[in-house]
Amino acid sequence: METNLIFHRNFAGMEKQLQRYRFPVFPQDVDGKQHLRMVALESCILNTAGLAAAENGFGSVDMINEGVTWVLSRLAIEMRSLPEQYTDMYIETWVEDYGRLLTTRNFTVYDHEDRPIGHACSLWALMDMKTRRPVNLQTHPDLQRFANGVPSPIAKPDKIGAVQGEPKAEHRVSYSDIDFNGHTNSMKYVEWMLDAYPIERLYERRIRRFELNYQHEALHGEQVRICWEDSEGQTAFAVQSADGKDFCRARIVWGNAWE
Amino acid sequence: METNLIFHRNFAGMEKQLQRYRFPVFPQDVDGKQHLRMVALESCILNTAGLAAAENGFGSVDMINEGVTWVLSRLAIEMRSLPEQYTDMYIETWVEDYGRLLTTRNFTVYDHEDRPIGHACSLWALMDMKTRRPVNLQTHPDLQRFANGVPSPIAKPDKIGAVQGEPKAEHRVSYSDIDFNGHTNSMKYVEWMLDAYPIERLYERRIRRFELNYQHEALHGEQVRICWEDSEGQTAFAVQSADGKDFCRARIVWGNAWE
Repeated sequence: METNLIFHRNFAGMEKQLQRYRFPVFPQDVDGKQHLRMVALESCILNTAGLAAAENGFGSVDMINEGVTWVLSRLAIEMRSLPEQYTDMYIETWVEDYGRLLTTRNFTVYDHEDRPIGHACSLWALMDMKTRRPVNLQTHPDLQRFANGVPSPIAKPDKIGAVQGEPKAEHRVSYSDIDFNGHTNSMKYVEWMLDAYPIERLYERRIRRFELNYQHEALHGEQVRICWEDSEGQTAFAVQSADGKDFCRARIVWGNAWE
Repeated sequence: METNLIFHRNFAGMEKQLQRYRFPVFPQDVDGKQHLRMVALESCILNTAGLAAAENGFGSVDMINEGVTWVLSRLAIEMRSLPEQYTDMYIETWVEDYGRLLTTRNFTVYDHEDRPIGHACSLWALMDMKTRRPVNLQTHPDLQRFANGVPSPIAKPDKIGAVQGEPKAEHRVSYSDIDFNGHTNSMKYVEWMLDAYPIERLYERRIRRFELNYQHEALHGEQVRICWEDSEGQTAFAVQSADGKDFCRARIVWGNAWE
């Protein structure tokens, strides 16, 4: 696809190679206040990760051939402003490091005039498809050559605690939630969470920081429950199974409304 | 945005100007069988219409300034094959004609090797935003210069009859369903319909022809019901209000599974 540019940027005096992708913002990507939807932004960030990994030779298709698969564990996003409908945004990405169980991939989002407008930081595990257990990334030394050590300007995504309170909504996992690999699309949990939250509280504030923890996967046909709990300047969300197991947790740190 | 190409094609010996747009197919655009989702395809078709109209000076923003708005009335789509994940598709569009109440906009879909793989035909009305009544398009002679008279190779979308039978599912219109203009996104009705239909019947056949009639708009917070009814080689769908008014009807003509 005609999406990629190889790019170089200077980090602390060192020239580093990045991968850069263009995403147009279409009307369906913005909400009723004409602000980019978190789901649309997450979708572009995850597509960036997928395209970049594939070009480096360790995309999902390559890894499945090796019997392993990338699993998104945590994600944090902070935006200072949002790209507007009918403009292009650009996302640059690089791999920061490989730990034993998690690798860190960072992102910077640029608007159509190439101004940096936000950042994201993601943590990924590599899962053995047979045992369903995480793989020690140190046993894949070929991955290391893509790690450039450059940290994200934003804090890494943190562990989110359990959410208290009664479920606010339910959803049955359906055809449109299921991915090419038969799994529930990561973005869909976010869609269910935000749809369960009062729309006027989404419209009257902006999301200053968004954090996600992915824990278990909801399956097709499963009835999931969505919980949320407001606290001072924050809201915590969980998507749960009928017996209270968390599939996904999220935390929003709220800011004032977009100007 | 960097999406547009002006293109010329020969129709029956006449050189006609078309507008052409590129759309990458990302993982979230395909279903569990790796086939392009009808919702993703409709989204690209409607974005093509929106971009082309805007470049011609009668996009939704221009029209709202004149106190009128384009309303999609009917849509028909027929695909011979589908573009694959991580490839680009191209959609070309032109305005065929302007009647008194409806204008016809046609589309041809090309795969990444520029092979024509499908067609779409859409009918649009122009609605007065104050009276909520359709406008006589003959009172907008400025529109006429974009009509080139070239028909679509597929039949125009037909009127779809009422659907019999009990509702199969319900949905509450939520944050993620609402467009930049506060209206329910046209694609969402299709998502609700297909999500209410048995997934295995979607997976075991292909959609040979897809027809949509948009009748009324569902509002935020509204609880809608989804009905469908199978008949010989076809399925009819309706999204209805609690008191049985149809918001949207659709008909699928089924073909054998994709190879």
